[in-house]
Amino acid sequence: MNFKSDNEAPAHPAVLDAVIEANQDFATAYAADRCSQHLNARFSEIFETDCHVLPIATGTAANSIVLAELSPPWGAVMCHRTAHIHCDEGGAPEFYTHGAKLVPLDGDNARLDPATLARAIDSAGVHGVHNCKPSVVSITQATECGTAYRPQQVRAVADVAHARGLPLHMDGARFANAVAWLGCTPAEITWRSGVDVLSFGATKNGALTAEAVVVFGRPEWLEGLERRRKRGGHLLSKMRYVSAQLLALLENDLWLDIARTANERAVELAAGIEASHAARLEWPVEANEVFMRAEPTILQSLKDRGFEFHIWPGYNDLARLVCTFATKPEDVRNLLGALSELG
Amino acid sequence: MNFKSDNEAPAHPAVLDAVIEANQDFATAYAADRCSQHLNARFSEIFETDCHVLPIATGTAANSIVLAELSPPWGAVMCHRTAHIHCDEGGAPEFYTHGAKLVPLDGDNARLDPATLARAIDSAGVHGVHNCKPSVVSITQATECGTAYRPQQVRAVADVAHARGLPLHMDGARFANAVAWLGCTPAEITWRSGVDVLSFGATKNGALTAEAVVVFGRPEWLEGLERRRKRGGHLLSKMRYVSAQLLALLENDLWLDIARTANERAVELAAGIEASHAARLEWPVEANEVFMRAEPTILQSLKDRGFEFHIWPGYNDLARLVCTFATKPEDVRNLLGALSELG
Amino acid sequence: MNFKSDNEAPAHPAVLDAVIEANQDFATAYAADRCSQHLNARFSEIFETDCHVLPIATGTAANSIVLAELSPPWGAVMCHRTAHIHCDEGGAPEFYTHGAKLVPLDGDNARLDPATLARAIDSAGVHGVHNCKPSVVSITQATECGTAYRPQQVRAVADVAHARGLPLHMDGARFANAVAWLGCTPAEITWRSGVDVLSFGATKNGALTAEAVVVFGRPEWLEGLERRRKRGGHLLSKMRYVSAQLLALLENDLWLDIARTANERAVELAAGIEASHAARLEWPVEANEVFMRAEPTILQSLKDRGFEFHIWPGYNDLARLVCTFATKPEDVRNLLGALSELG
Amino acid sequence: MNFKSDNEAPAHPAVLDAVIEANQDFATAYAADRCSQHLNARFSEIFETDCHVLPIATGTAANSIVLAELSPPWGAVMCHRTAHIHCDEGGAPEFYTHGAKLVPLDGDNARLDPATLARAIDSAGVHGVHNCKPSVVSITQATECGTAYRPQQVRAVADVAHARGLPLHMDGARFANAVAWLGCTPAEITWRSGVDVLSFGATKNGALTAEAVVVFGRPEWLEGLERRRKRGGHLLSKMRYVSAQLLALLENDLWLDIARTANERAVELAAGIEASHAARLEWPVEANEVFMRAEPTILQSLKDRGFEFHIWPGYNDLARLVCTFATKPEDVRNLLGALSELG
Repeated sequence: MNFKSDNEAPAHPAVLDAVIEANQDFATAYAADRCSQHLNARFSEIFETDCHVLPIATGTAANSIVLAELSPPWGAVMCHRTAHIHCDEGGAPEFYTHGAKLVPLDGDNARLDPATLARAIDSAGVHGVHNCKPSVVSITQATECGTAYRPQQVRAVADVAHARGLPLHMDGARFANAVAWLGCTPAEITWRSGVDVLSFGATKNGALTAEAVVVFGRPEWLEGLERRRKRGGHLLSKMRYVSAQLLALLENDLWLDIARTANERAVELAAGIEASHAARLEWPVEANEVFMRAEPTILQSLKDRGFEFHIWPGYNDLARLVCTFATKPEDVRNLLGALSELG
Repeated sequence: MNFKSDNEAPAHPAVLDAVIEANQDFATAYAADRCSQHLNARFSEIFETDCHVLPIATGTAANSIVLAELSPPWGAVMCHRTAHIHCDEGGAPEFYTHGAKLVPLDGDNARLDPATLARAIDSAGVHGVHNCKPSVVSITQATECGTAYRPQQVRAVADVAHARGLPLHMDGARFANAVAWLGCTPAEITWRSGVDVLSFGATKNGALTAEAVVVFGRPEWLEGLERRRKRGGHLLSKMRYVSAQLLALLENDLWLDIARTANERAVELAAGIEASHAARLEWPVEANEVFMRAEPTILQSLKDRGFEFHIWPGYNDLARLVCTFATKPEDVRNLLGALSELG
Repeated sequence: MNFKSDNEAPAHPAVLDAVIEANQDFATAYAADRCSQHLNARFSEIFETDCHVLPIATGTAANSIVLAELSPPWGAVMCHRTAHIHCDEGGAPEFYTHGAKLVPLDGDNARLDPATLARAIDSAGVHGVHNCKPSVVSITQATECGTAYRPQQVRAVADVAHARGLPLHMDGARFANAVAWLGCTPAEITWRSGVDVLSFGATKNGALTAEAVVVFGRPEWLEGLERRRKRGGHLLSKMRYVSAQLLALLENDLWLDIARTANERAVELAAGIEASHAARLEWPVEANEVFMRAEPTILQSLKDRGFEFHIWPGYNDLARLVCTFATKPEDVRNLLGALSELG
Repeated sequence: MNFKSDNEAPAHPAVLDAVIEANQDFATAYAADRCSQHLNARFSEIFETDCHVLPIATGTAANSIVLAELSPPWGAVMCHRTAHIHCDEGGAPEFYTHGAKLVPLDGDNARLDPATLARAIDSAGVHGVHNCKPSVVSITQATECGTAYRPQQVRAVADVAHARGLPLHMDGARFANAVAWLGCTPAEITWRSGVDVLSFGATKNGALTAEAVVVFGRPEWLEGLERRRKRGGHLLSKMRYVSAQLLALLENDLWLDIARTANERAVELAAGIEASHAARLEWPVEANEVFMRAEPTILQSLKDRGFEFHIWPGYNDLARLVCTFATKPEDVRNLLGALSELG
């Protein structure tokens, strides 16, 4: 029973159907096909504003290309200490930005704290060219710890950033899970709260491999984004298959249904853990990830019984359990059952 | 009737079936799945030697990551004047190599001339650190002009490169078409002729999107290749779907069947053009691309009749006609028919 | 007797005196000292317009930092085939630009031909993001072959560039020699002819080590230039010594006197060569460099007699003879005497 | 009275004399002159082992070029939280390394703590290519807080680094001050304690502008170092003037005399502060920098009386007072007198 990552779940059947459908005939290469050309309009409906959309195969590339467009090489990217861009992308943001510095900041529950952010920006750069220049703020939604920013929390970060001339990027690798959990509209949690550009994740949410850079009303960024995508080798000649996946997920809110199902499993799992004697929750569960503290021996016993999950780096008693639309309710029940036997 | 690019043809049904098959269950992320783990063994069989294989989504990324591993930032990449890496990848090789210089060289029929190459390497770098240092030779198979290097031609280039300490890279975006046309083994035209690393193309040959870096016996390159793939955002979390495509194409020589079909259409087309009064072949047809010289008015008339193809950059009377496994014999007959009406 | 390079001549005594003078007391670091702060005003007088000036230690750095500011990483720098930035800077422009492509163009006497330039820009980039994007034009004054652009020649290049939205950079490693030879004002040959930014060379013209980036009325480039200078490690903490050299050279037109003396030696040398039977001039002598064609045995005999000079790369019968303010008239006479003995 | 920086002091007269001496005649360009060619031998004597030396104009360039050679672009540079390379070089290390990540670590008195370092290295990179890979350790001698590593402290850091396959770099911007204060030999505090490569600072210690990369027995690094120096625009054509400065400073231990004089002023200043009621020392004084805590109003009063110094970034009550060989004993007495009046 796999709780390792939403990356390990299969794609949703509707996504595969869309790929098959896109394969019926010849189509124009390099994102000039009908599916790709329809993305702007489709995302603009979903987000209730004019969007420019660049489909792309991976979240690391989406994030890195955005950061490179928003930060000069001498810039500093302000992000949470746990941010994926800082911890897990193998230096891709530094590569694409040509050497910008990622500045890790503290904040409870993996959310950037507006006051901490303000202090960090204001104190950086006092020594002029000798310092890196704060150039962009990046937040993760849902966060690396499975929590979600409320719209007013995003707004507070955006206000700090914008007041200092910095744009706000949202890494939405688990954006669908956050939206589904918050029960808000995509617009409310993004541009209406001050987000300037979004990495819209789909790979963890039922796609084979599909992400999108979604730009809210900043056409001056498009040339750079498109050039950087090409230069990164990310302008797929057969982009139609990526775009088809995105369109399939947006159809009839499938993306939110998939996320909601994953979140429900996570809530069930969290409730069981809270009720157990053997473990406790490390952070509030506000998406599809559950972080569970338990004795290392208990974690090992769970692994021995065939439950797959990651021990969080730097800990030996903290397990990350990820739920997906393909996680079965009985998988959750089985894990909780095992836990109660062990506790 | 689309003769624009093999990028515009649909994927082969067997490739889609393999993706569906790979989607049956959870699988380990980041190329640690069973399909990806099987690539080394499968390619080693096909190439009759120990291969290390990195699946990757695009040819531009495959080429660029290889060149970055083989050339220091101050290096010079020796290639033909028409090379895709020099003309068509938007500066991706410069990006991944951190600024290496691509040195365009002459050579008939888009093939690098060994004597020209030797002179270029020998005359470069005489001024020490003031010059860029020749660091790698890259050839394209089949070439940008639809010709193919014979094994002894590859060997001649390899000998020049190796005698000067430079490795030889082959950009095999249309490798299958070349192998099919030459009737040789994959081994003969690569490592047995001195190729050190191959960008194995599949996207143009029936895949949705799938390429592979194939390294022949240079394990010291692997760490850098893997690091650069990650840093480029090209380590797909769900790499299994790429690897599944590659395995499907290698099954029962499907990749060569697909290429052979495309080549056959090209041969039919070439024969018709040679027999026509309205046009002539620009270069020998040794793969699936046909370059046809004809009056601009004739080319325009063909376009008006619904035949889609590219006019070659820098010309107004040179058309590139690309055949694929999905090109129907009647498409070729129709085009030749139209040509004879116009001629 | 050293005709190898103006880099090998000593600095002018007045330059040393200025350094000694600048050393009398403490001074503010990082170009905030009085000498450095005076550069804008001083260069503005000399160039008869508002200039922004960045002192810098080397010409390679000056050129590379300028090109990086004017070209995006995916840009193409249009330059003559012989340009120092393309041939002799070890890839520094590629490093600073993060991988822009230098496009070498033909043109008689090492001068960029406006029609060739126009064609090159117009034909590049027709394939959109797949091509590098022409972003800046760079010319060398005096050229690598010792010729000089007349104002109207600069203007013709500038018009081609500006009509296509590209700025014009002048690499003025031997700017003083060109101005002295042309007998024009610094303004006429730069901004009045369309030059947007100049690498003002002094190291080859009597300084210890001193160059300057001179920007004509484009304040939006300054932040990037300053950031790139710092990031390149070129913001000297004791910049006052560089600035003092520049001010000393500009005092009472010393920079032009030094150049004029060097040019006079070159003219004497050229006249003697033209009159000789043993050698001939390869290019017109319009600055302080003399390119002399002669039998390899004659060149070797001159070397055997103690005359030092470079054989031009790629040739065995072409010598470059560089004159400086420190070259003595008898050195020139001696060389011509030896030549007539050998001829 | 200037206590702002050793960068603001004049150069030592002997250094100027050496430059004048080096200017007597023509000399070979690009570090092939006699002064530059003598550096290896001279430094080898001083350091009692075979050294390879690259003269260079700035410390930022020296550090960055070394780090670029020692770290792949995907590497992590382990350094103290206060390190100049991390805080004050405007992203130059990131530029030269093509995007390596600087990892700031804690440690008392600005010295890297071996246990902290070990933990940081061991915990980084557990997630393979998803993490940056610890690649080099860099320490500063004297530190940014004016303290010095003892030989055994360097050794402890070196042992941690070497046991994990990482080389050790020492940023010696104030190396002379540390050696003079420690009373050890240059060898003892560098290669005998495990340092693999040193940025030898002279600009802050009496030079006009001169630094040197000193490599202890790793010839395989030389090509990369030289290529990177050229690509950075740091191979001065007239390098002889930089090398002459270095040789002048090494003559008869002038470099240590200069440092010793500066240190003596710092000791006098520190003693006076310790004895005062108005201020106290923040860190032990083990070189030429004195960090003084005092009420902001007292610091302001000192500034009002004409004493120049920096308030430490992030503080309002911490002053950095830097002494140099040109700081007069009465300057120190005056400052202490003012302090006692204010206290």
